[in-house]
Amino acid sequence: MSKIGVFFAEGFEEIEALTVVDICRRCGLETEMVSVSGERRVLGSHKISVEMDRLFGEADFEGYDMLVLPGGAKGVQNLEACESLMKKLDEFYAAGKYIAAICAAPSILGHRGMLKGRKACSYPSFESHLEGAEVTKGPVELDGKVLTSRGMGTSLDFALAIAAVFCGQKAADEMAEKVVYQRM
Amino acid sequence: MSKIGVFFAEGFEEIEALTVVDICRRCGLETEMVSVSGERRVLGSHKISVEMDRLFGEADFEGYDMLVLPGGAKGVQNLEACESLMKKLDEFYAAGKYIAAICAAPSILGHRGMLKGRKACSYPSFESHLEGAEVTKGPVELDGKVLTSRGMGTSLDFALAIAAVFCGQKAADEMAEKVVYQRM
Repeated sequence: MSKIGVFFAEGFEEIEALTVVDICRRCGLETEMVSVSGERRVLGSHKISVEMDRLFGEADFEGYDMLVLPGGAKGVQNLEACESLMKKLDEFYAAGKYIAAICAAPSILGHRGMLKGRKACSYPSFESHLEGAEVTKGPVELDGKVLTSRGMGTSLDFALAIAAVFCGQKAADEMAEKVVYQRM
Repeated sequence: MSKIGVFFAEGFEEIEALTVVDICRRCGLETEMVSVSGERRVLGSHKISVEMDRLFGEADFEGYDMLVLPGGAKGVQNLEACESLMKKLDEFYAAGKYIAAICAAPSILGHRGMLKGRKACSYPSFESHLEGAEVTKGPVELDGKVLTSRGMGTSLDFALAIAAVFCGQKAADEMAEKVVYQRM
């Protein structure tokens, strides 16, 4: 069974982060909420406090098939300031494993040279940070093993695209129908 | 400023509940997360535990302009089993104040005779509980002061419809654009 790590720093955008957790768990994917703040509860950008499954130091990175970075301007600053996470991200990229980021978070991938020559998207005001990318209007882009998406309003597209990676497009389409999402 | 109470019972659907909190707070509406479980932290249907603002007994119902009932099959059973909440719901309905419900939760309104002669929608398998309603395929229906919606995949439509009630359609449309929701 595939396993996904979603990384939460103070100021994370709640819906961007939690829609991934919700949809991936519905699809039977093991999905861990990992705190990057040092605390077991992390406060989102709209004052919603969520209990984590793991502290960063407890996370088993060997076991993850994908790292997911949610948005939220402050949350993304805090993710990028976590050198241990950035090191893991670089290792994942070098190993050709999946990395996903939404909203402001694709800027982190841009800063680390992971988007060069790839199609990618982000929150409009962060597009200048997608260094070397062919910037699209999304709602999601999967290029190689790098998945990006635009904002809180594309959270469900992002989560369903992750589901499609591990469970196939048919299962993702069935999930979209099950949750009454008529967009895809 | 308008004030909204969102009610959380064990087994609530996380995205349905939290998208309302997120969008309404973005719109400057005072939005309280109220525990119906007796605990300050409530566990959702996909094992996401969220910290509440208030226990039920601490909620100031006089101050609320709208009561919001999220879905999640087990969560809705637990909401309906809370007699104190049902009493408040009846009082709100009798006073002509706003009530909103999504997914399985509109069944509660159906059981209490609040949907008779109204357009309403719900999760497909709960439509038979919308007693006396003109059942639609949504994604949202506002009839008088009763707002209903269909499921996790219509959470953002539901939240934006609540924002439109209190802030106007223009502000809701601007918020949809701000969060990069291209659907409305």
